[in-house]
Amino acid sequence: MLILRTIAEMRDWVRTRRQEGKSIALVPTMGYLHQGHVTLLERARKDCEHLVLSIFVNPLQFGQGEDYEDYPRDLEQDSQIAEQAQVDVIFAPTVKEMYPRGQKTFVDVEELTEPLCGARRPGHFRGVTTVVSKLFHIVTPNFAYFGQKDAQQVAVITRMVQDLNMNIKVEVVPIVRESDGLAMSSRNVYLNEEEREEATILYKALEKARTEILQGQRCSKMIVESIKEFIAQSARAKIDYIEVVDAFSMEPKQELVGSCLIALAVYIGKTRLIDNVVVEV
Amino acid sequence: MLILRTIAEMRDWVRTRRQEGKSIALVPTMGYLHQGHVTLLERARKDCEHLVLSIFVNPLQFGQGEDYEDYPRDLEQDSQIAEQAQVDVIFAPTVKEMYPRGQKTFVDVEELTEPLCGARRPGHFRGVTTVVSKLFHIVTPNFAYFGQKDAQQVAVITRMVQDLNMNIKVEVVPIVRESDGLAMSSRNVYLNEEEREEATILYKALEKARTEILQGQRCSKMIVESIKEFIAQSARAKIDYIEVVDAFSMEPKQELVGSCLIALAVYIGKTRLIDNVVVEV
Repeated sequence: MLILRTIAEMRDWVRTRRQEGKSIALVPTMGYLHQGHVTLLERARKDCEHLVLSIFVNPLQFGQGEDYEDYPRDLEQDSQIAEQAQVDVIFAPTVKEMYPRGQKTFVDVEELTEPLCGARRPGHFRGVTTVVSKLFHIVTPNFAYFGQKDAQQVAVITRMVQDLNMNIKVEVVPIVRESDGLAMSSRNVYLNEEEREEATILYKALEKARTEILQGQRCSKMIVESIKEFIAQSARAKIDYIEVVDAFSMEPKQELVGSCLIALAVYIGKTRLIDNVVVEV
Repeated sequence: MLILRTIAEMRDWVRTRRQEGKSIALVPTMGYLHQGHVTLLERARKDCEHLVLSIFVNPLQFGQGEDYEDYPRDLEQDSQIAEQAQVDVIFAPTVKEMYPRGQKTFVDVEELTEPLCGARRPGHFRGVTTVVSKLFHIVTPNFAYFGQKDAQQVAVITRMVQDLNMNIKVEVVPIVRESDGLAMSSRNVYLNEEEREEATILYKALEKARTEILQGQRCSKMIVESIKEFIAQSARAKIDYIEVVDAFSMEPKQELVGSCLIALAVYIGKTRLIDNVVVEV
């Protein structure tokens, strides 16, 4: 397994594989790999002849006062996990390598980025789509893999690829959860023991909502209220948002019909966690 | 020579050439080809094994009240010119083919798009960078050719390619002029006989400015004033802008030093013409 630090090295590697007519998979991450990432890598490993894992904590997608500086990093541990997942190349550029002259060009997806995390984290998705575009141009993958945990990110990137005619297949991999239901996230490491226990409330609330929908509830407002009440039981949890939107367009849904994304962001102590469920009605 | 109308056909053609390891040149145009375009094609023909000419009058880069509907179109004549220039493929998609679901994703270059045409044509460069990104992803050229007549466009696209790590070499080809100095443009066809004569004033004014700089003038304001006075002689000419900026960053220059772009837009009757000169000081 190679660890490449520069765009020039990455391009060289890609050129050779392309000449051999081989397919390339890219799993873009911010590192601090967990089982969710491993699931992406396993899926990618099966689909393509070559597997590239990018690790880059992208300053452009963090807002002021967010956790860019504190975001957990551990390239050594990541390398071991990647090696085990049969990654061919880790592409781990520095910030200077990715933004050598300051970035003046940005990729923006409108409308889909307005609700949910887009409303709470101004500039976040612009940072995501811009860096993913850069990675796509550097690695030129045939397939790129993203986790459903970031449901809005998945919708936004899928739309970007369509709208800009990028010749890449976006593959979405289901949420991987701890045995008690907590969605895997690099940020879970921020939680202390009590918070970690309390954090299962996100999953439990979503499961309750799913059950209510399966039992016939069709009113989004009622579902949101039900989740709100459920989470209010926890003293440590502070709701950032609970929303019901179309799983593809991200348009708010009054009535639960079609592909419904129920998404939420909740602070457990100081740690902001997100989770979601898609219900086909 | 092929004329391809769909993205799928274009991609198929590209895939075969790529498998053969051949290089591809793209000359993106809005059609109604003139000698300026032919110069781009000739240059591209020399550099690459395959030559693609795209013809697409891009609605996204025209503002309200601009000449999108009236923009001259003549695919038959363009085909003859392209054939003669040994173009391999004309890619001429419809608007529906390029924007099948309405465009929600946009590529924006900040700062460089603020002065000159960017200030007078809001959204113009966003339309240009977005459609050029799409064409780049569809055709995946090794080289792309643009005319220096659109100096700001050249700077903006060059910056976009750098910032988004597009693996494409942007080649800039000098302005081609009629024998009396008028810069070639598809929009020259709008001019009536008197206007056509008067239109040479843009070039003459720029040449006067260049001479003054070569004679030692280093004050941008004086140069702009001199051009203004010169153009004021014409009753048919109405100045849209005259500006002196850095040829790469597009930052306004008070003092003429370095790569100075003197750019202007002038209405001759109802037709808006642009022209420019770069002086190395």
